[in-house]
Amino acid sequence: MSKFNIRFLPYDKSIEIDAETTILKASIMAGVHINAPCGGKGTCGKCLIKVKEGEHDTKFTPQLTEENKGKGYLLGCQTRPKGDMVIEVPIESQIRPGEKIATGAKKEELHRLFMELAGEVQPRTKKICLKLTPPSIDDPVADLERLKRELSNLGFHTDHFHCGLPFLRKLGKTLRDENWDVTVTLYQSGTALEALDIQPKNLCGIRYGAAVDIGTTSVVVYLVNLINGDIVDVASSYNAQARCGDDVISRIVYATEMNGLDELQRLVVDNINHLLSGIAKKHGIDLGLIDKIVVTGNTTMTHLFYGIDPESIRLEPYVPAVFLFPVIRAKAVGISIHEQAPLYSFPNVASYVGGDIVAGVLTSRIHTKEGTSLFIDVGTNGEIVLGNKEWMMTCACSAGPCFEGSGVKFGMRAMEGAIEKVDIDPVTLDATYNVIGNVKPIGICGSGMIDALAEMYLTGVIDQKGRFREGLDTPRIRHGESGMEYVLVWRVESGIDKEITLTEVDIDNLIRAKGAIYAGFTTLLGEVGMTFNDIDKLYIAGGFGRFIDIERAITIGMLPDMPVEKFEYLGNTSVTGAYLVLLSDKLREEAEEIAKKMTYLELSVCRPFMDEYMSALFLPHTNIDSFPTVKRLLNEVGNVKL
Amino acid sequence: MSKFNIRFLPYDKSIEIDAETTILKASIMAGVHINAPCGGKGTCGKCLIKVKEGEHDTKFTPQLTEENKGKGYLLGCQTRPKGDMVIEVPIESQIRPGEKIATGAKKEELHRLFMELAGEVQPRTKKICLKLTPPSIDDPVADLERLKRELSNLGFHTDHFHCGLPFLRKLGKTLRDENWDVTVTLYQSGTALEALDIQPKNLCGIRYGAAVDIGTTSVVVYLVNLINGDIVDVASSYNAQARCGDDVISRIVYATEMNGLDELQRLVVDNINHLLSGIAKKHGIDLGLIDKIVVTGNTTMTHLFYGIDPESIRLEPYVPAVFLFPVIRAKAVGISIHEQAPLYSFPNVASYVGGDIVAGVLTSRIHTKEGTSLFIDVGTNGEIVLGNKEWMMTCACSAGPCFEGSGVKFGMRAMEGAIEKVDIDPVTLDATYNVIGNVKPIGICGSGMIDALAEMYLTGVIDQKGRFREGLDTPRIRHGESGMEYVLVWRVESGIDKEITLTEVDIDNLIRAKGAIYAGFTTLLGEVGMTFNDIDKLYIAGGFGRFIDIERAITIGMLPDMPVEKFEYLGNTSVTGAYLVLLSDKLREEAEEIAKKMTYLELSVCRPFMDEYMSALFLPHTNIDSFPTVKRLLNEVGNVKL
Repeated sequence: MSKFNIRFLPYDKSIEIDAETTILKASIMAGVHINAPCGGKGTCGKCLIKVKEGEHDTKFTPQLTEENKGKGYLLGCQTRPKGDMVIEVPIESQIRPGEKIATGAKKEELHRLFMELAGEVQPRTKKICLKLTPPSIDDPVADLERLKRELSNLGFHTDHFHCGLPFLRKLGKTLRDENWDVTVTLYQSGTALEALDIQPKNLCGIRYGAAVDIGTTSVVVYLVNLINGDIVDVASSYNAQARCGDDVISRIVYATEMNGLDELQRLVVDNINHLLSGIAKKHGIDLGLIDKIVVTGNTTMTHLFYGIDPESIRLEPYVPAVFLFPVIRAKAVGISIHEQAPLYSFPNVASYVGGDIVAGVLTSRIHTKEGTSLFIDVGTNGEIVLGNKEWMMTCACSAGPCFEGSGVKFGMRAMEGAIEKVDIDPVTLDATYNVIGNVKPIGICGSGMIDALAEMYLTGVIDQKGRFREGLDTPRIRHGESGMEYVLVWRVESGIDKEITLTEVDIDNLIRAKGAIYAGFTTLLGEVGMTFNDIDKLYIAGGFGRFIDIERAITIGMLPDMPVEKFEYLGNTSVTGAYLVLLSDKLREEAEEIAKKMTYLELSVCRPFMDEYMSALFLPHTNIDSFPTVKRLLNEVGNVKL
Repeated sequence: MSKFNIRFLPYDKSIEIDAETTILKASIMAGVHINAPCGGKGTCGKCLIKVKEGEHDTKFTPQLTEENKGKGYLLGCQTRPKGDMVIEVPIESQIRPGEKIATGAKKEELHRLFMELAGEVQPRTKKICLKLTPPSIDDPVADLERLKRELSNLGFHTDHFHCGLPFLRKLGKTLRDENWDVTVTLYQSGTALEALDIQPKNLCGIRYGAAVDIGTTSVVVYLVNLINGDIVDVASSYNAQARCGDDVISRIVYATEMNGLDELQRLVVDNINHLLSGIAKKHGIDLGLIDKIVVTGNTTMTHLFYGIDPESIRLEPYVPAVFLFPVIRAKAVGISIHEQAPLYSFPNVASYVGGDIVAGVLTSRIHTKEGTSLFIDVGTNGEIVLGNKEWMMTCACSAGPCFEGSGVKFGMRAMEGAIEKVDIDPVTLDATYNVIGNVKPIGICGSGMIDALAEMYLTGVIDQKGRFREGLDTPRIRHGESGMEYVLVWRVESGIDKEITLTEVDIDNLIRAKGAIYAGFTTLLGEVGMTFNDIDKLYIAGGFGRFIDIERAITIGMLPDMPVEKFEYLGNTSVTGAYLVLLSDKLREEAEEIAKKMTYLELSVCRPFMDEYMSALFLPHTNIDSFPTVKRLLNEVGNVKL
């Protein structure tokens, strides 16, 4: 089949494809980042492209709005070449991988937390300096047995000693070249002892580890000094898999129905390698000195990272292949650090509650507290844990990545150009807003959506069901292509040469997402016969947590109406947990205990959840009395008659 | 640098080399087998070639005899091309890799021995059939944890469970494709349990293992049914490394000074793969069904097999890198069987007493006997063990590969064309001989040398010191190029168009070799204050043992003058030991106990050995009274005045 050259602007990257391949697929192959939340299935209408040159075939689906059609946009997933083409990727569908991601708390705070919890740096891999007695005719013990003898003298168990071929092959030469004065890297697990590497003397004081959080949306890497626990540096980026779908379900579909498992595996591994090598290089650290890596992620993300078929995760009865991954070599999955470095991954609890949530619990310490806490990780999904030192229950609300931009017409992630804060004047009903980076706005991110929803509700633009009220005197409320909409940004102020609006469909999606989260809280509480009054603390984790305005999240009924001081932001607890376990074997065992202790509640087959969810599809809730603060606010504004 | 084409006859194989490369090296690269006992160092004078066409550079060294020079022969290791060449490899320097090797006892005998020792087939790898309960909403345990739960129900320890990435990647699909009814291959070691593979149901009854003896000279492979212990088939060949040197020292030099470690490793691995795939194909057995391999060999051979630098073996204080190799994947060294199959290697005892000798002890059972036994493995080296159920001592006599053809002008291995039996008429002093394969003789093998030496001594051709007696009336005794010699075969009867002789130099070498072995016996006995009278049994192992004539070996003073019924041939005990351990974990532990129990005596720094050796450099010995049988024989023949 003949091949056509496709050139992408503004990146100026090119790729050869055949006539069967879509422009979206071509962009993935070319390393061009086009936003495609549905993974190319044609359902999200986000992968907008503009054909500058070249013959092509395209299908016009309802997902391509009239306005976008008018601007000459096509959908990348519906367009195939009939000759060489030049494609422009408009700003709305660009993913900018260099953007800054929430990377957790400050370095010093984390180190303090670690010292408080573990007391000392004691990772499972050790580096020790050994001075061996050289062999003689009277002591002709082989090199390996000589090493084992010395380790045994130092108190190590050597009955279950192991080492791999690379170690054996360098053992004799290193011992002799270094005059029997060497550094040995060991991995200890129970009574099993493995020698990972042998190097010149006095390298015991130089070693590093990597803590990695593989989020559905973003990847965060900590480079850690394994001697003193210091965080050398942090790097982050959007998860390179995002171009194959925004949420875990799209990724699973891409991996299975579109045969993309290998591609997804490679994308995230390359992503991590790229981040790691970047900071290692910056600090002049050889990647070979990184001899340990700990990874956290949700169940789907870790399965994809290991290259394990995730299909059963999305099919009833929702069973993954693995809860606790065996420790393997990082090299086996393609991570480019010390070739013998072990890879540890946090244990999963269920198909939709993964190791990232175990890491969250480990960080929040709710498993050690007398009082009962709630924990929520608001990321691409919303996972909730309820419990204390005696018991823990967990569930996952399929809130979807709504607050990360998916399912909202002008939704986008919290990056430059995103509206992150909105105020609406209760009299004029005009909007004012803050934009990340102080540029012209190109969309609206999660915190902006919560603000907008809260403000529209308080000012009476929309009613309790999220419907636009009739007869309000403002040009901002109008009939758009997909029904009623509120104009947040006029075209002249906009960075994308068109109005930025919130539609009734958007509002519906947001209400469903916030309703799912709230219903998750109340369902878990109901299971154990508790109410929010029994809760001492509600911990909020996730990159999202950095920007969220708690009072407004209460206003829309996403968070319960509790005193503000009971809420605590923890930031990215997934990477914090990885950092803690990287440094301490004790905390690693604690993490595995946490996973065993958690009881999972599958909401999709839970009748009470459906009732709770239906009641939560109102602003803030069908039962306004459970939101006294909101009731008071409404009275103050006075636009809404309760 | 320009390349020249070198074509080898009679093989008709070609290779391109540059002007720096010797013809010997070119032959190795081309896969042509030229005999080169010294490994190309220019000291043995055996790698004879004949230039049929082409310009070249060559060096005439003393190792190239006048006779060989007269026939137009050159040394391959001293010749380099100056243009394209055609080379003939004469029959004297050909190695014929297809020849039959001693492969141990009969299959049925081995199986009987195994049942007697172990009682049941119980290898460390197991294959079990499992029917798992499929997951449900009420039992949403992950696939791996489901499998572990079932194993635990069956009584396996799963606290230290492990599996590799390939297993994880096929787990979910196999379980579902096979409707949760599967075959799992497990490896058990202490409390550690590893899952090696998961396959469709009902494959528990089909599995194979490989037992491999890597001799310096030859490689023997058994393909074994791991269910019932039957030997499916046996294959053997000369060790493909032989072209890089005949003895372990030459191989070590080739590996280190000539940078040939990788090449040697590849040669022997290819060798084993070739033998294994040959018999597997013959019996229609998929190589993937071979999920275990046990290897024996001397310390140098196993180090080379693993690709571990053997240099320290030959340098004082003679310490190898490894005694007990950790269990690794066979795939890691390049063995092409099941990709997760574990590789076990017998433990070494010292640099010159390897796992093959441990296997010999295991087979001979001397470690279980009340009475004291001697054990000798006469191969390329001579290793001796003395002991009983209480204690064992061992040493290695650097006898050299004399009896395998090296160091003897017309010496060769026991293959077609080799004189294996010699008689000399005490009156005419004429020789008669048997040739393997009933063809014209081209050389003389070990048993032929022992015969010839014994006959020359008994008939008075040579004296006690191995010197030719003066004034004997026979044209067979003459002055040759390298001093006095005895013509075994006249040119007309010979297969190589020249006389086959035994020279005074040959005889010297043979006496040194037999003296070293005998001194090994007496030194070990002396260490514990014993004599041959205290010995119940003397076990002889090694391919060599098949052909040796015990009475004649006693005549030359190589074996002690004990009653013939005290000697027992065991054949190739190295491969027998590998076979036993392949089938039984119990016998494997026994082998490791044997290795720990053996005390090694380093003869090269042992003063008594030097004295014993000097005394043994006579026929049969300085002290003829320790050889009463020989004394009686000499009297009967009457040619020698004692």
